[in-house]
Amino acid sequence: MADSPTIDAVFHNAVIVTMDDAFRVLQDGAVAVAGDRIAAVGPSADVLAAFPCAVQTLDLGGRIVLPGLVNTHVHTSQQLARGIADDVDLMTWLHGRIWPYESHMTEEDSYASTLLCGIELIRSGVTCFAEAGGQFVSEMARAVELLGFRACLTKSTMDCGDGLPPNWSCCSTDDCIQSQKELYEKHHNTADGRIRIWFGLRQIMNATDRLLLETRDIAQKLNTGIHMHIAEIPYENQLILRTKGIDHGTVTYLDKIDFLRSNLLAAHSVWLNVPEIGFFSKAGVKVSHCPASAMRMLGFAPIREMLDSGVCVSLGTDGAPSNNRMSIVDEMYLASLINKGREAYISGTTNPTALPAETVLKMATINGAKAVLWDNEIGSLEVGKKADLVVVNPFTWSMVPLHDSIANIVYCMRTENIESVMCNGRWIMKDHKIMNLNEEEVISSAVKRANDLLARAGINLPRRMNYV
Amino acid sequence: MADSPTIDAVFHNAVIVTMDDAFRVLQDGAVAVAGDRIAAVGPSADVLAAFPCAVQTLDLGGRIVLPGLVNTHVHTSQQLARGIADDVDLMTWLHGRIWPYESHMTEEDSYASTLLCGIELIRSGVTCFAEAGGQFVSEMARAVELLGFRACLTKSTMDCGDGLPPNWSCCSTDDCIQSQKELYEKHHNTADGRIRIWFGLRQIMNATDRLLLETRDIAQKLNTGIHMHIAEIPYENQLILRTKGIDHGTVTYLDKIDFLRSNLLAAHSVWLNVPEIGFFSKAGVKVSHCPASAMRMLGFAPIREMLDSGVCVSLGTDGAPSNNRMSIVDEMYLASLINKGREAYISGTTNPTALPAETVLKMATINGAKAVLWDNEIGSLEVGKKADLVVVNPFTWSMVPLHDSIANIVYCMRTENIESVMCNGRWIMKDHKIMNLNEEEVISSAVKRANDLLARAGINLPRRMNYV
Repeated sequence: MADSPTIDAVFHNAVIVTMDDAFRVLQDGAVAVAGDRIAAVGPSADVLAAFPCAVQTLDLGGRIVLPGLVNTHVHTSQQLARGIADDVDLMTWLHGRIWPYESHMTEEDSYASTLLCGIELIRSGVTCFAEAGGQFVSEMARAVELLGFRACLTKSTMDCGDGLPPNWSCCSTDDCIQSQKELYEKHHNTADGRIRIWFGLRQIMNATDRLLLETRDIAQKLNTGIHMHIAEIPYENQLILRTKGIDHGTVTYLDKIDFLRSNLLAAHSVWLNVPEIGFFSKAGVKVSHCPASAMRMLGFAPIREMLDSGVCVSLGTDGAPSNNRMSIVDEMYLASLINKGREAYISGTTNPTALPAETVLKMATINGAKAVLWDNEIGSLEVGKKADLVVVNPFTWSMVPLHDSIANIVYCMRTENIESVMCNGRWIMKDHKIMNLNEEEVISSAVKRANDLLARAGINLPRRMNYV
Repeated sequence: MADSPTIDAVFHNAVIVTMDDAFRVLQDGAVAVAGDRIAAVGPSADVLAAFPCAVQTLDLGGRIVLPGLVNTHVHTSQQLARGIADDVDLMTWLHGRIWPYESHMTEEDSYASTLLCGIELIRSGVTCFAEAGGQFVSEMARAVELLGFRACLTKSTMDCGDGLPPNWSCCSTDDCIQSQKELYEKHHNTADGRIRIWFGLRQIMNATDRLLLETRDIAQKLNTGIHMHIAEIPYENQLILRTKGIDHGTVTYLDKIDFLRSNLLAAHSVWLNVPEIGFFSKAGVKVSHCPASAMRMLGFAPIREMLDSGVCVSLGTDGAPSNNRMSIVDEMYLASLINKGREAYISGTTNPTALPAETVLKMATINGAKAVLWDNEIGSLEVGKKADLVVVNPFTWSMVPLHDSIANIVYCMRTENIESVMCNGRWIMKDHKIMNLNEEEVISSAVKRANDLLARAGINLPRRMNYV
């Protein structure tokens, strides 16, 4: 280690949950950071001795250090719509609320929405997210660059389908592809490499075969990923079954046309049968499981079965009008609970051993990194990887006693236990303070924009109680 | 109002969610407090004008005021056991973890556990809880008196049943009744009326008919309640069906022996059929729905059907080894999500309109008050009721924008939004500070006791990862 580069910081006296292949946990461990990378992970004494000239040495007082969490399905443009579509049926949700909202959104609204969403993501320990697909990718990129974290941004494209708002109709297949290629050229690998551009397909009902297959080919050629909502509701499968002459739903059809590849991130994937889980497994498709959103609107995804079949399942929050907490911390808790409960309908009783804490933590870290095709650089605390990490204070009322720290991270930890977050070697939250922007100004501007947008879109919510 | 008593405080410029019969929400409202009671609820201008000489006047800057939340099923003695029984089957949970833990607990452990649990309850906006049944009621009472909130405390009694730990065997029926009568005489209506003593029955498998019926009669005579775990798991129903010559489970049997009364608080009540829901409804039995615990260990309770049948359903957290967040704030979020998702197994698709936010908020407030037989004094913000209230700061990243405040309270609010909590006219948390004890000392003492207790009970947890 004599000719090592300048070490910017050594964080020591911490419980380091590495999430490496051996699932090592260092009980009195340290991480050394040089530039944007992890230079060392090891026992505190060893790392301190190896780097006596580190620019900064920080005693973490026994706190827990986790890899930065990865949220693999987020609609950042929907943050201003939190609360506009709660407790309504799916058609009202889409036609009465979300489409009017999205089709009246401006570029500046999207920027404000992504900033507000980003604050919530960072406060829940997220250092990397996969955008589920919005309209204004350049504005998302501007916000991500400022917030300081990492993202796979995606434009939502549609080249067919009925019922879209008149001011927001679908594009030609060529336009869908071309606009995404332009975004790729403009933003891919920008912001010190923190931003990547993916290809986006909203869902099968809004995509022709040509769009699907050309997207497959261009994404493969550009070595990037594809993000798509797949098998969300029974109706989707029924429609595909009826119109495509196959024996089940979307996944069967996508397999038949040879669309499935290992760079595909399938969001939700609730309504899959056993052969379809096999198709995902064989092709190496990644899944984003969004527990809250699934419970509320979609159904119980066969997550245990997917994991048993070797499918890489990660965690996502979905968008604010579907959830409404944009917290991967809460999704960990939910993922474990919901998938234990789901067994009641399969075997007659819940299975409290399903999706144990260590599996859920894997879903939120290294599986998330694999899902966004970035596991060579993020998802675990290992030498040479990017310095993306979360400092958790587990000594407060919400997490003690710590008989089983890993269980408590998944079942007890709340956003308020997330103390500091580093991405790419820089603090983006330190001691609960968001670093790169004025949080109060962002909130105030976002609230004003949200109200104006609802008025413009003509969305009037019924009142739940008697306001006087 | 000229001859009104001394007004101690007027809190104005707030959104007052009264939860009264008319579900009134005052948009620029105020609450006046005199002693331990609410002296006025109304528009800010009116209340300020009526009480110009209030000792204190506090501008809440548009914050939300809720009635104190009620948690109707809490094992306060299990707080030191958080994390000792995660991801294990039910038999390991009970025989390998919980019974060894509980049977090695001392009175001082119970006091420390209740204090630690109380901090978490208060931080989640709870001003009243129903103890699910522990051993050391006097210690619970000591902790509740100090914490400053309200509780219905219960001793867990068992006069039959196999498999109990040798140092913790069941008592005679007479002893079960007598010990509870003594607790009633000693503690009922103490701590300025904040403590009430209820009668406790662990579950039907540990209660003879004589214990059930004598408990029914003595509770009725003393005008107090009975707290009992009912119809938790399929095995319970199957056993009762097999041994009692009836056609379904516990509830059918309890109806047959005429045990069901309106002062019965039935915890969990997951495995009820339609006639049994009818028995509850007819008798006025109250239910404590514990969403997290049910998902993890029990199953999906027919909550929508109970509510439709007029059963008063409230919310509980259960104990820390079953949940593990002891937060009624999170249970509100879960109750809505889980009961929407449950419909997927009844109708094939989730029902996003099931258990809307206003229903869930009712379950956590006025229904909770009814469940603990205290709705004449708590559960809503009305003149003459006790001054039990929660101040919520909704202007942070986790709750904005506020298009639908009631929805955001249920779906977005987190414990960190709970800013201040008042019980019986006194602040028990103010600006996030727990008022009546030194929180750090409580945590430190509880953690030490928790570790000692586990060592004494010989509970060794397997490690989930490779600790080095």
